[in-house]
Amino acid sequence: MASLLTVGSWRADAWVKAFHTAAPGRTFYLYGRDEYDPAEIRYAITWRPPAGLLPSLPNLQAIFNLGAGVDGVLADPDLPDLPVVRLVDDTLTGPMGEWVALQVLTHHRRALTYLAQQGRQEWEEHDQPVASQVRVGIMGYGILGSHCAKVLTTLGYTVSGWSRSPKPADVPLHVGAEGLPEFLANTDYLVVLLPLTPQTRDIIDAELIGQLAQDGVMGGPVLINAGRGGLQNEDDLLAALHSGTLAGASLDVFQTEPLPADHPLWTAPNLVITPHAAAPSNPTAVSRYITGQISAFEAGKPLQNVVERGRGY
Amino acid sequence: MASLLTVGSWRADAWVKAFHTAAPGRTFYLYGRDEYDPAEIRYAITWRPPAGLLPSLPNLQAIFNLGAGVDGVLADPDLPDLPVVRLVDDTLTGPMGEWVALQVLTHHRRALTYLAQQGRQEWEEHDQPVASQVRVGIMGYGILGSHCAKVLTTLGYTVSGWSRSPKPADVPLHVGAEGLPEFLANTDYLVVLLPLTPQTRDIIDAELIGQLAQDGVMGGPVLINAGRGGLQNEDDLLAALHSGTLAGASLDVFQTEPLPADHPLWTAPNLVITPHAAAPSNPTAVSRYITGQISAFEAGKPLQNVVERGRGY
Repeated sequence: MASLLTVGSWRADAWVKAFHTAAPGRTFYLYGRDEYDPAEIRYAITWRPPAGLLPSLPNLQAIFNLGAGVDGVLADPDLPDLPVVRLVDDTLTGPMGEWVALQVLTHHRRALTYLAQQGRQEWEEHDQPVASQVRVGIMGYGILGSHCAKVLTTLGYTVSGWSRSPKPADVPLHVGAEGLPEFLANTDYLVVLLPLTPQTRDIIDAELIGQLAQDGVMGGPVLINAGRGGLQNEDDLLAALHSGTLAGASLDVFQTEPLPADHPLWTAPNLVITPHAAAPSNPTAVSRYITGQISAFEAGKPLQNVVERGRGY
Repeated sequence: MASLLTVGSWRADAWVKAFHTAAPGRTFYLYGRDEYDPAEIRYAITWRPPAGLLPSLPNLQAIFNLGAGVDGVLADPDLPDLPVVRLVDDTLTGPMGEWVALQVLTHHRRALTYLAQQGRQEWEEHDQPVASQVRVGIMGYGILGSHCAKVLTTLGYTVSGWSRSPKPADVPLHVGAEGLPEFLANTDYLVVLLPLTPQTRDIIDAELIGQLAQDGVMGGPVLINAGRGGLQNEDDLLAALHSGTLAGASLDVFQTEPLPADHPLWTAPNLVITPHAAAPSNPTAVSRYITGQISAFEAGKPLQNVVERGRGY
């Protein structure tokens, strides 16, 4: 009845310690470090598992993902037909709201301009619109998106959302493919929180950027992506930043992570880069959530937040 | 029945245009540009008026200040004993909340560290506490302070306030000199929104900085001043930033503005400087507020938001 933990090199010690603390009576093996009998593994707790690992575990019963996005797990072509449990972590929601608010404010309040002036010891004030004149569109309106909407609304921004399917929302919500053009045409700042699925791969491209509002008070649209790097066509982003089609961008995610040291995005203008740090999983909270689900599952209750394979999240 | 406008070199054309638009039937003279008969001036609309100007207007009935802080007007030793009307501008409240949130997030989410890494094309994630572990103390709890408290609370921060006198508040409020030590000892990030009065001049000094929480999760206290430069002892700030007693600071205001190009604050570590741009007065909103007050006053109603000379705001 053991669990196998795959986290790569990502804070392995912190993860192992957190799981042992959350469920001291259970056995957790760390993939790549501990010896284990594959037949003993009932649960896989994974962040980007090596392809082929999960199919090699004959008695596996469930797969728990260590991040909000499950694209890394679903990418395994031999993934067993077992429940994949999505991470729903309240401790991700707050940090994502912090990061998105920071990025929206950084561009709206011209923080890069003022920091550059500070470096030149230069005192010059720039005009700026109040927040209500900036239309922020949130693409992907789940738990994270609706929290970001609340934070941005409190800051005074004019917020709307876009979702694949209708759902209750505290801001005007555009729905589905038919709602996308109007959503984009009324968005100055696009905040992307979509899951990565075959339908959303490369969705942020030159065509989508070209549909964003060009008449806003901020002099051009701004892109903020905290979803997945696979959502963005990075050649198109680079071209849009250099041409000024995008007035600015903030990216926490990239097609290849870590972003290679010689990648041209590092030096693109008006771009803020953070190293997939927008909403890091908190080992204490995550280990409690997963071991709690395992205990309930063993008591005969259904698993919560199981991924629908067909839609990819 | 004319008004005299003194704005120095600060966007004079925008101010004149806004007042003429707000009250097309009234006469507004711009000090330093227009000829006027001193006896004709009933109202002074001022930003840092030249000393001696206001006493030279024999028929002056009221003084309207163009910013939230009235220290510039009250500094005139010959100020006539007339009502001084404070600017209460809803359009200041939102931008102040934006600026304060941006600065708190910039330090908490290590934006300066990540921007420096970006400049070196370096990918490294840093641990960070969630917002609830950061205690933000707002010193000066009026309209601006309570709006900032609301924004920061929505972002998840643990917020408290300090005020000279008791008042209703949505966060724990410490009051008066006797409440100050406990307030400071439980503050990781100090947001200063105080008016500048003889009692508050130089209040942010080494002694006050030394009373801030040293045991917080962020590795040292952070100072954020959007009030007035005269509140801060800049030699003490410089020493605290260089020694690390202050882990960071954001300053929008300075003892001398513009901050001289050779001032040592420009190059102090972990400091964000903005050029008195946190919450710029909006000429359209301000001119409506002031001309509205003038019309009501001439109809026999009392002026609103008159400064209490004794307390200085």
